[in-house]
Amino acid sequence: MTLRTGKEYIESLRKLNLNVYMFGEKVECPVEHPIIVPSMNAVALTYDLALDPLYEGLMTVKSHLTGEKVNLYNHVFQSTSDLVQKVKRQRMLGQKTACCFQRCVGQDALNAVYSTAYEVDQKYGTHYLDNVKEFLLYVQKEDLVTDGAMTDTKGDRGLSPSKQKDPDLYLRVVERREDGIVVNGCKAHQTGIVNSHEVLCMPTIAMSEEDKDYAVSFSVPTDSPGITIIYGRQSCDTRKLEGTEIDLGNSEFGGHEALVVFDHVFVPNNRIFLDGETEFAGMIVERFAGHHRPSYACKVGVGDVLIGAAALSADYNGVQKASHIKDKLIEMTHLNETIFSSALACSYEGVKTPSGAYLIDLMLANVCKQNVTRFPYEIGRLAQDIAGGIMVSQPSEKDFRSKEIGHYIEKYLKGVDSVPTESRMRVMRLIENLTLGTGAVGYITESMHGAGSPQAQRIMIGRLGNFEHKKGLAKNIAKIKE
Amino acid sequence: MTLRTGKEYIESLRKLNLNVYMFGEKVECPVEHPIIVPSMNAVALTYDLALDPLYEGLMTVKSHLTGEKVNLYNHVFQSTSDLVQKVKRQRMLGQKTACCFQRCVGQDALNAVYSTAYEVDQKYGTHYLDNVKEFLLYVQKEDLVTDGAMTDTKGDRGLSPSKQKDPDLYLRVVERREDGIVVNGCKAHQTGIVNSHEVLCMPTIAMSEEDKDYAVSFSVPTDSPGITIIYGRQSCDTRKLEGTEIDLGNSEFGGHEALVVFDHVFVPNNRIFLDGETEFAGMIVERFAGHHRPSYACKVGVGDVLIGAAALSADYNGVQKASHIKDKLIEMTHLNETIFSSALACSYEGVKTPSGAYLIDLMLANVCKQNVTRFPYEIGRLAQDIAGGIMVSQPSEKDFRSKEIGHYIEKYLKGVDSVPTESRMRVMRLIENLTLGTGAVGYITESMHGAGSPQAQRIMIGRLGNFEHKKGLAKNIAKIKE
Amino acid sequence: MTLRTGKEYIESLRKLNLNVYMFGEKVECPVEHPIIVPSMNAVALTYDLALDPLYEGLMTVKSHLTGEKVNLYNHVFQSTSDLVQKVKRQRMLGQKTACCFQRCVGQDALNAVYSTAYEVDQKYGTHYLDNVKEFLLYVQKEDLVTDGAMTDTKGDRGLSPSKQKDPDLYLRVVERREDGIVVNGCKAHQTGIVNSHEVLCMPTIAMSEEDKDYAVSFSVPTDSPGITIIYGRQSCDTRKLEGTEIDLGNSEFGGHEALVVFDHVFVPNNRIFLDGETEFAGMIVERFAGHHRPSYACKVGVGDVLIGAAALSADYNGVQKASHIKDKLIEMTHLNETIFSSALACSYEGVKTPSGAYLIDLMLANVCKQNVTRFPYEIGRLAQDIAGGIMVSQPSEKDFRSKEIGHYIEKYLKGVDSVPTESRMRVMRLIENLTLGTGAVGYITESMHGAGSPQAQRIMIGRLGNFEHKKGLAKNIAKIKE
Amino acid sequence: MTLRTGKEYIESLRKLNLNVYMFGEKVECPVEHPIIVPSMNAVALTYDLALDPLYEGLMTVKSHLTGEKVNLYNHVFQSTSDLVQKVKRQRMLGQKTACCFQRCVGQDALNAVYSTAYEVDQKYGTHYLDNVKEFLLYVQKEDLVTDGAMTDTKGDRGLSPSKQKDPDLYLRVVERREDGIVVNGCKAHQTGIVNSHEVLCMPTIAMSEEDKDYAVSFSVPTDSPGITIIYGRQSCDTRKLEGTEIDLGNSEFGGHEALVVFDHVFVPNNRIFLDGETEFAGMIVERFAGHHRPSYACKVGVGDVLIGAAALSADYNGVQKASHIKDKLIEMTHLNETIFSSALACSYEGVKTPSGAYLIDLMLANVCKQNVTRFPYEIGRLAQDIAGGIMVSQPSEKDFRSKEIGHYIEKYLKGVDSVPTESRMRVMRLIENLTLGTGAVGYITESMHGAGSPQAQRIMIGRLGNFEHKKGLAKNIAKIKE
Repeated sequence: MTLRTGKEYIESLRKLNLNVYMFGEKVECPVEHPIIVPSMNAVALTYDLALDPLYEGLMTVKSHLTGEKVNLYNHVFQSTSDLVQKVKRQRMLGQKTACCFQRCVGQDALNAVYSTAYEVDQKYGTHYLDNVKEFLLYVQKEDLVTDGAMTDTKGDRGLSPSKQKDPDLYLRVVERREDGIVVNGCKAHQTGIVNSHEVLCMPTIAMSEEDKDYAVSFSVPTDSPGITIIYGRQSCDTRKLEGTEIDLGNSEFGGHEALVVFDHVFVPNNRIFLDGETEFAGMIVERFAGHHRPSYACKVGVGDVLIGAAALSADYNGVQKASHIKDKLIEMTHLNETIFSSALACSYEGVKTPSGAYLIDLMLANVCKQNVTRFPYEIGRLAQDIAGGIMVSQPSEKDFRSKEIGHYIEKYLKGVDSVPTESRMRVMRLIENLTLGTGAVGYITESMHGAGSPQAQRIMIGRLGNFEHKKGLAKNIAKIKE
Repeated sequence: MTLRTGKEYIESLRKLNLNVYMFGEKVECPVEHPIIVPSMNAVALTYDLALDPLYEGLMTVKSHLTGEKVNLYNHVFQSTSDLVQKVKRQRMLGQKTACCFQRCVGQDALNAVYSTAYEVDQKYGTHYLDNVKEFLLYVQKEDLVTDGAMTDTKGDRGLSPSKQKDPDLYLRVVERREDGIVVNGCKAHQTGIVNSHEVLCMPTIAMSEEDKDYAVSFSVPTDSPGITIIYGRQSCDTRKLEGTEIDLGNSEFGGHEALVVFDHVFVPNNRIFLDGETEFAGMIVERFAGHHRPSYACKVGVGDVLIGAAALSADYNGVQKASHIKDKLIEMTHLNETIFSSALACSYEGVKTPSGAYLIDLMLANVCKQNVTRFPYEIGRLAQDIAGGIMVSQPSEKDFRSKEIGHYIEKYLKGVDSVPTESRMRVMRLIENLTLGTGAVGYITESMHGAGSPQAQRIMIGRLGNFEHKKGLAKNIAKIKE
Repeated sequence: MTLRTGKEYIESLRKLNLNVYMFGEKVECPVEHPIIVPSMNAVALTYDLALDPLYEGLMTVKSHLTGEKVNLYNHVFQSTSDLVQKVKRQRMLGQKTACCFQRCVGQDALNAVYSTAYEVDQKYGTHYLDNVKEFLLYVQKEDLVTDGAMTDTKGDRGLSPSKQKDPDLYLRVVERREDGIVVNGCKAHQTGIVNSHEVLCMPTIAMSEEDKDYAVSFSVPTDSPGITIIYGRQSCDTRKLEGTEIDLGNSEFGGHEALVVFDHVFVPNNRIFLDGETEFAGMIVERFAGHHRPSYACKVGVGDVLIGAAALSADYNGVQKASHIKDKLIEMTHLNETIFSSALACSYEGVKTPSGAYLIDLMLANVCKQNVTRFPYEIGRLAQDIAGGIMVSQPSEKDFRSKEIGHYIEKYLKGVDSVPTESRMRVMRLIENLTLGTGAVGYITESMHGAGSPQAQRIMIGRLGNFEHKKGLAKNIAKIKE
Repeated sequence: MTLRTGKEYIESLRKLNLNVYMFGEKVECPVEHPIIVPSMNAVALTYDLALDPLYEGLMTVKSHLTGEKVNLYNHVFQSTSDLVQKVKRQRMLGQKTACCFQRCVGQDALNAVYSTAYEVDQKYGTHYLDNVKEFLLYVQKEDLVTDGAMTDTKGDRGLSPSKQKDPDLYLRVVERREDGIVVNGCKAHQTGIVNSHEVLCMPTIAMSEEDKDYAVSFSVPTDSPGITIIYGRQSCDTRKLEGTEIDLGNSEFGGHEALVVFDHVFVPNNRIFLDGETEFAGMIVERFAGHHRPSYACKVGVGDVLIGAAALSADYNGVQKASHIKDKLIEMTHLNETIFSSALACSYEGVKTPSGAYLIDLMLANVCKQNVTRFPYEIGRLAQDIAGGIMVSQPSEKDFRSKEIGHYIEKYLKGVDSVPTESRMRVMRLIENLTLGTGAVGYITESMHGAGSPQAQRIMIGRLGNFEHKKGLAKNIAKIKE
């Protein structure tokens, strides 16, 4: 059980036999595809930092199963301190990658199925927790990446899984065999799937008896027969094919999301974590979402980068002392730290589930994510305000390198005299990346919809708001006796 | 060292010889004045709950000086857990009183001078910490209320203390005697001063050498010769003189603030906590503000009451199922819990000062208070939205009780049939109280200016924002080498 | 047909035999009651300014019935230019009174019944328009004030008028006689009723066949037998009884709202404007609301006063040059002018109804009012921010006038040296008035609920949004063919 | 003087000898370059619609110089009705193109130099207005497109033009000859320059005596010797090179911006509109900005498309009846119409300049643009909320067309059963286009910075706010006599 290096991790990916499509063609070697590589780099960093003495404190933890040091991503939380460590890790990695580094979804999935499995077993005498533990030991031992797969494409949102015209629109069991089950379906927005060894599937909504075949959770290798991965387009994705660097804004790191189709995929019995216990589908969803919502502390780290980029652009424009600029940087920081506050608070206020694993405070976790659906948009807006319009009208790097006209750009895109024009161009592209480009997919839109769209959080806040208690408080003060 | 009951506390106040003015006349017996009584009730509750088995866990703590159980308000924080307990206590008391209960300011002052005194002593060989400890032992032993007094009236804000035309516009030492000092000045917005036994004064801003006589901190009894207390007016204050209940909205509890004049007040040597060490004035201000900002978690408790009142008013109007009503209650809850998150987070992330006392995380405390300057206004706005216009056009309780016309009100202000008209009138008055009346002074305007106006927090956020670090993060991502 | 002076107007009120109650007692002489007088002053100003050469251009217009000059308030709009004049008049009067001056509601009611009556007559061959014109001639000739009465108290909002347990919870016809009808019911929030000669009643919601008896509109004198007026309480209302001036903030002007009970009130045939044509109830509501929503341009004028007060307070505190203060004043101005923009726009875009009278653009009018439910709250919040906490902790005027302690206040509440302490106290009280006191009832809460609560506007915006057209635009761009 | 068709317009562009660079290479035939074509299409539409009986009312006007019908874009406003027509034209074209159609900048420039030239001539006896009129006649007669060029790249924003290290960082006269002047410099963000026949340059800031050589305004053909155009990159620009349609979101229309370098460009005397009258530089800037700010009414039209797209996506997802979805569409509409209100209001309130040309109301125009810097961001955020995450993780069109995997996408990206998967994919791409892609450059970031960044409007609002008047209003109410 040794922690792998980023390099070893990449080699392990190379051995996978993934079935990935992009732009209508099969990707022969994903680990070398320029559009995929930055996302792989981000994951690789989660390996390297676990071995870096400066960061191992944030990146690793003792396994509660073996007592050995494992990557925190492959850990089931055993204390509020574990939960807080996660949040701080997320921010740090956001700062270092300025993108989605794709791993929290797997950890949050593991945690959701772990604590739920215990409760299913208690009720039904099943042995799902044994399966989860065996699987956990495996990913800890091999230091693997697991993709947590929840979101079905859902077809008509007004209809339940079993009522859809096409029965596969939610992932389901199509065959039950002695040695396992066969599933059909599709999971959307699969973050980091191409960089993952395993895909851990969960139901996407609470279910009722009639949806029995849809109440299924399991894990299989990402290169299992029957799995097809269709890479999702992102804004500005093909800039990575241009062979330049400046125009990328963030040339080293990036995220990815894909559609993952399961076409008669076999799942062996020992990898099944739920099968037909419909009333527990909702618990997995709620716990996964609960864990995943404060994982968006990563956006606080990305926000730090964006605030820094905006501050740099102000320096380069020579306006860093303008009071309105300073005020906007303060506002961005305030919003960013407000998100961080709720991510921390829900973790510190975490509670032990019957399984012994810890769960964050659900109210504060939902509050955290609700703020995530708002503040990155405003932080991005302020960054664009500070940067100036050149952010979206700057010539290409190829123009800048051109012998014929590059000197014009060098001359006229100069900001303050002491700063190279290229530095200013780079920071503009970074702000573009995070507010309109590939980075914006992660920083902005994923902040809206990842871990549940805003309305999902509002429903939870409404459910947890305990309005009867609050009405009682008001009655006491107003001396209303009824 | 026994904890007093609320009743004993009130008796102890009765013995004070306070010099209080209101509406141009001296208040002969403050503990019986109908405008003052509700504020005293709120403080008395902090005594009674400390003796209530249900609440003693939140309300009391072991003194680090004596090991005996003391009211948490008279405690210097020894751990992050103490800090978190404070935040939860504040919310609970806000829920029970729906007003400012006036005690946190003294605790936060005690904590600020305690940890600062240690550092002054370290630098100058003074013995201020001994004085602070002696004073702390005294208030713990006698179970007293201390008012923390910071805000000078400041005259022309563009001028420093010693540059004001009238040298008394900031409190200062006017005479130094062998046995102590004599001070002149005035502290504004003194929360709960009439309900306090001691007043602990602190400087109000960072100072420079020339302001030496202004860099002074001490405590004296509130009935010391030379002290004059002029009671501040609040919106709707005189409704308490009408002899009715409904129109008050909150008939039992309330806050108060006053102007406190120090006219040649003598301070004995053993009650001096700072005298002339100008460079530490700023540390007291920063630490007091730091502690005091998350104390505004009390407003989360008041917010709970207001959310409850809004929900009740919707029930009484028969609109509780309207989706926009539910959505507004969710939004109010979301904003309220966002404040709570940052109050918790800055406490959990607290750090030990050299004195051993704990200080909250300054960045997150400022973020907390910044949100407090915004969200109660929006929560109040939404409460008014839900309540409906009758909140500000409802007839008086005397009309309702009138034999001639009361039956019209009974008939026409009826909401849903099952709820007495009086209940509806009561909840409307409570919402009025919290958004326009005496309660609004505490819930709204005090949320803006207490513990520092919004710009004070922005300056701190700007100072703590570490923009150079953030620029470095951006440079790493954009690969800017300079 | 001559325009009366304010004095003559007051004399005409004195002759009314109103049945007004306040604090459980009958008000013998409303025109001399200190709580009522400021509201009367505001209405009187609408008379005096009509005779003032500086303002007659905004205040008067040629009657389309007689060609004679009449107060614009007693006019049915004959052009978009009339509509724009109204909006500018409203702002000007808001600037001069800083309160609700109570007259627009009558004009908007007149306009709604006028244009609707035409359409009812067209459909049913009735002669309501003759009645409306006769009534209009009367109020023009006598230069009277008409209160427009729409809002019933509504009981259980989940039930229609005829389904309420108490059939009177919406105003209705209880008897039909040869010479007229007899009505029962109650109208809430009746703005300026005590200062009005006539009360023009309208239905409060769209109705269906079963609500026939509730679909009634008419006007009667305010002192008709059977009418009881119960004065509504406002925040800080009794300060007007204290015999002081500073503490009022606005000592000359104010608004008022009351509950008006109709207990078997007789309406002669020639004053009936609708009786049983249920399908037109909704048209009256929509047109009244449509006209009334941009009438909230008055709040822009009040906003001007509040912005001025905040700017003054900054001057007096010596902080007028701080960039954050300037920025807040700019933000307040921006929000205020945004409201003005939509009030103007909906008027300029007005259209002719079949009756020849002009109606504002409904979409933009609703947009205008929706902004009114938001921006005054934020403007008020910023005003409180700029003013500082002394706004809610300032001693009373009686303390200031006290020989014993007044000198302390004089000394310590001094701001910049050149400004008298009293001036600073006055501006603080004005800001208190407009954000927490009697003025806030009009500026804040009435902005929320007057002319319909926010959800009412949202429903209209949703109805007028023409989403099918917008979907068509999107399909064209995305080249979606279906 | 005949109006050209779009086709004729394109032919006229083909004849230009433009010196355009993109991706480091000279663009041989701009009118056929796939990245440029959509922007040209948008301009061509402004020709075709002027000839379309349905739209000519909005698109054309009688020239005040010749009385002949001209494209409204080549008109100097002679009435408030002209100004209002402009605003409505802008919205309509935004609806039809969902992008920046690039023409208003020229019209606003023409108007600014026209009215300013009159005032310069009055003061200095110059004949600039003759030049402007001659030029105006020319563009009317030939039905040309003029690019208005204001923004210099500005180097160090802390330094004035003549203080920059490189004197060319603001465009300037480098040589004065008998027959004209020679200029050097660079204009950034040149909207539609490649689709324009003429480029009309103006100073970018108010200037003082020392900046004499920078106070210059003129027009020259876009293919004048010495002009180099470097095409600006936009988010997702190269998708237009992929040969697909769906992925573009908006395949027919788009905007563009470019850097335009002037390297010793000659300007003949009759095309000079200002040369050295430094105190009038500020007037041109203010009037250009004044006219240009309400031109952003185009974004209201684009907003209509985005609202429609969001509504469509809700239909396709089957969630169109959810109350939160309806509420978000209403909010988007409300914000959109609020912008429209201020664009209309500032036009209706326009005033005649001494030249006879009309200028919008400056305060309301700035208020309009300030809202434009905020609301499209929020409208975009809500559109992303409604659309769902698939908006940023949808596979490419090539995947959809693929024989191997296209059927999976067809199956799993199906929403409600009655809608083709392709339709849903198209609307998702349109929302992506407008919130992250090429359309977002125009709808979002250009809304921030075009016609001046937000702080520029705030400075104007501060200047026009007339705070002294407002303070006077407050003093009147508070009865402050000084």
